[in-house]
Amino acid sequence: MEFTHIDERGRAKMVDVGSKEDTLRIAVARASVQMEPKTLAMVAERKMKKGDVLAVAQVAGIMGAKKTSELIPMCHNIFLTGVDMDFEIDEKNACIHIEASVKTIGKTGVEMEALHAVSVAALTIYDMCKAVDKNMVISDIRLVKKIGGKSGTYLREGECIEG
Amino acid sequence: MEFTHIDERGRAKMVDVGSKEDTLRIAVARASVQMEPKTLAMVAERKMKKGDVLAVAQVAGIMGAKKTSELIPMCHNIFLTGVDMDFEIDEKNACIHIEASVKTIGKTGVEMEALHAVSVAALTIYDMCKAVDKNMVISDIRLVKKIGGKSGTYLREGECIEG
Amino acid sequence: MEFTHIDERGRAKMVDVGSKEDTLRIAVARASVQMEPKTLAMVAERKMKKGDVLAVAQVAGIMGAKKTSELIPMCHNIFLTGVDMDFEIDEKNACIHIEASVKTIGKTGVEMEALHAVSVAALTIYDMCKAVDKNMVISDIRLVKKIGGKSGTYLREGECIEG
Amino acid sequence: MEFTHIDERGRAKMVDVGSKEDTLRIAVARASVQMEPKTLAMVAERKMKKGDVLAVAQVAGIMGAKKTSELIPMCHNIFLTGVDMDFEIDEKNACIHIEASVKTIGKTGVEMEALHAVSVAALTIYDMCKAVDKNMVISDIRLVKKIGGKSGTYLREGECIEG
Amino acid sequence: MEFTHIDERGRAKMVDVGSKEDTLRIAVARASVQMEPKTLAMVAERKMKKGDVLAVAQVAGIMGAKKTSELIPMCHNIFLTGVDMDFEIDEKNACIHIEASVKTIGKTGVEMEALHAVSVAALTIYDMCKAVDKNMVISDIRLVKKIGGKSGTYLREGECIEG
Amino acid sequence: MEFTHIDERGRAKMVDVGSKEDTLRIAVARASVQMEPKTLAMVAERKMKKGDVLAVAQVAGIMGAKKTSELIPMCHNIFLTGVDMDFEIDEKNACIHIEASVKTIGKTGVEMEALHAVSVAALTIYDMCKAVDKNMVISDIRLVKKIGGKSGTYLREGECIEG
Repeated sequence: MEFTHIDERGRAKMVDVGSKEDTLRIAVARASVQMEPKTLAMVAERKMKKGDVLAVAQVAGIMGAKKTSELIPMCHNIFLTGVDMDFEIDEKNACIHIEASVKTIGKTGVEMEALHAVSVAALTIYDMCKAVDKNMVISDIRLVKKIGGKSGTYLREGECIEG
Repeated sequence: MEFTHIDERGRAKMVDVGSKEDTLRIAVARASVQMEPKTLAMVAERKMKKGDVLAVAQVAGIMGAKKTSELIPMCHNIFLTGVDMDFEIDEKNACIHIEASVKTIGKTGVEMEALHAVSVAALTIYDMCKAVDKNMVISDIRLVKKIGGKSGTYLREGECIEG
Repeated sequence: MEFTHIDERGRAKMVDVGSKEDTLRIAVARASVQMEPKTLAMVAERKMKKGDVLAVAQVAGIMGAKKTSELIPMCHNIFLTGVDMDFEIDEKNACIHIEASVKTIGKTGVEMEALHAVSVAALTIYDMCKAVDKNMVISDIRLVKKIGGKSGTYLREGECIEG
Repeated sequence: MEFTHIDERGRAKMVDVGSKEDTLRIAVARASVQMEPKTLAMVAERKMKKGDVLAVAQVAGIMGAKKTSELIPMCHNIFLTGVDMDFEIDEKNACIHIEASVKTIGKTGVEMEALHAVSVAALTIYDMCKAVDKNMVISDIRLVKKIGGKSGTYLREGECIEG
Repeated sequence: MEFTHIDERGRAKMVDVGSKEDTLRIAVARASVQMEPKTLAMVAERKMKKGDVLAVAQVAGIMGAKKTSELIPMCHNIFLTGVDMDFEIDEKNACIHIEASVKTIGKTGVEMEALHAVSVAALTIYDMCKAVDKNMVISDIRLVKKIGGKSGTYLREGECIEG
Repeated sequence: MEFTHIDERGRAKMVDVGSKEDTLRIAVARASVQMEPKTLAMVAERKMKKGDVLAVAQVAGIMGAKKTSELIPMCHNIFLTGVDMDFEIDEKNACIHIEASVKTIGKTGVEMEALHAVSVAALTIYDMCKAVDKNMVISDIRLVKKIGGKSGTYLREGECIEG
């Protein structure tokens, strides 16, 4: 047969992690949802027509963490040992801060799972408040802490991190 | 039977849209991924080990749009007639701008589908670049345009919108 | 070609509903979870380690309704216009009663979606309480009301139905 | 920043099982579907229009076991080593008994997977028979055996359990 | 802002079908699985350890049809009104022929759903027989009939098509 | 109780692999898509309206590998350590050859994942080209290499295999 190999540049793959060790992996990610003070008050007082915004966002974030590899194409499908989410209502800046902490014992980090969890939680907040506020903005989705793996511990500068 | 009704406040539901009309619905959402100039250059030159970042992010965003109602709990599962995504490399500000345009003919708007598409595309960019840059930040996930439905047309102030 | 047709008896299919009309469809289903009074008290007081049992069960039931056709093989994948769930704590009989009401405008009934919603909500209650009570039993998953379609209205005898 | 922490009471989480040991885990669950004798006869004789009821229910139950963590929000996504299902036609009591046996080697029990498998199988039976019998009731979804883990072996009282 | 637009060539999108009419759509696809005569006999006599091969493949094919848009990136997520599958054991050529017929009333054709259904059924046959025969080959996955839509009726030449 | 056990013959199950050892598993599968020379040229020159065919097919194949156990009923849900895909444009025979290589460290082989990956990639090629060519045929989906497990190494006769 006479083949013409296609361009190798940029060919996507799910890189093999088979040689990596099973170690404890922790990742913490954060995001913020900016909204009008009036919207924030309705969330805090649980007055949205669609239901208790943060209770639903919390479930959505945890379920989202488990579905990460279905959405992010080159992400490995892994077993998560634990997922915890936290929300803070920041009245001064009129926004909700979201934090997701994900753990596993495995061959790959869980940054994407933590980032996906806060992202889904933020979108859920948007969805449940959009009838009263279309100007909301989801920002600052970022990794703040990462433990485990060959690259060691990562702590984002300028973040206030517990523990 | 003697029931004690649980607190109705904040009880979540997927609100009935059965009485809404089937109309053309369009939603456009945007997001940005901030990264180091060196990372951006690797994306532009398609040198990432995991593959062509924007090609994968585009597929991920479109597939993500279709999965929106699986992740956002109170979101209706709807048929989308079209999804289009666009990426712009902004060297001056060292970031990638993402735009998703989603269309349907139906009873509900498609804001969440557009917002979810840019969110998944942004996370995919993060995933494919994270080996060289852990400080990336996903920001400004927002709705910029919405057409159709009872609330009429929405255009975010200060955005440059085509068409 | 010489074919030997396989036995037609019992050959499964997703029956064609293309000739059915698009009408308003409503289905209401119920289920009960029996547990020890002590367990029930912990649910009512939101003291379970895994979180607020009924808040999570509500989200799970609604999301489950949307996933029905992925789990029940011969069930059509349809658009739901609305899903609402209700829980009642029945101290006298030491159980939780669950009700799901599902609506659509389409060619097939939504019984399975309502039954699946109460089933998933019941299993979620079980999951969140199982650390303190393994003897719980999920019972009486049944259709109580069905409106729309050629077969007309169905009301289960002996049920107390509102509206 | 000045944060107002939201109420911690009932905050849902997927509890961390990272410190648990990988051991053999077995769970057996059962359920029953009550129907009219005429319906049961049609199942036994494979005369339902939608196909062979028990053959489809068996596949549905096994596939359902694998999807458990997608539906039950706080349930860990785990690898299952084996799933087996059994059905018994009980003419005397006009019902079908369902049993699911699920195994894994891991950090969490598989009760939810076994309970979900019988639940999905029962709903599938309902779906395939509902054209001729809307009064069917799914009952007695319960755990009958659990092996492995810190809490040791659980055997439900009053059940006839093999092996 | 100064943008550098990325190359438009080959940019993937889910093309908008909003202007297409809702018409009856039918698609019929076929595939074959070639195997050793001994393997075929075990399928016909239902002696495989994993279970009744064709009964499982039938359920898998129907469920696969419903999941098509989750796997094929640019495929629209649509409501299917009916799915029917047929299997023929061809002893002379030592293979199993698979046919899937898919219907909908909508804006897009259902070729991909029919092709995906036969593909998943074929892979299921492979999976259930692979312990005794690793040399099986899945071939001739093709569209044989297509009705509805602007392009009109398509009938593959050389195929024996009923109806 | 008086039970009538249903026929055990052909009862499907997901066979228990709990006693198998965790070893390195590799599987390589291949498939071909035959098309008109004109269609092939449009793929090679990236002129299809839906986008860059091979770039999308690559992402689809990798994502498909991760979803295998959701589609193939008796297939175990497993963690994959790596997935790589390759495409070759064969102008002489007017077809595209697809190869998927899947790896894991686990208790079951990954043949089905590799076969599913090439199958989904082939269907994606079909989907993206079908507007210009309905006569395409997907053929020769087969396993070419398998390493690991009790049955040892398998190499299909007559295949040119690297490494």
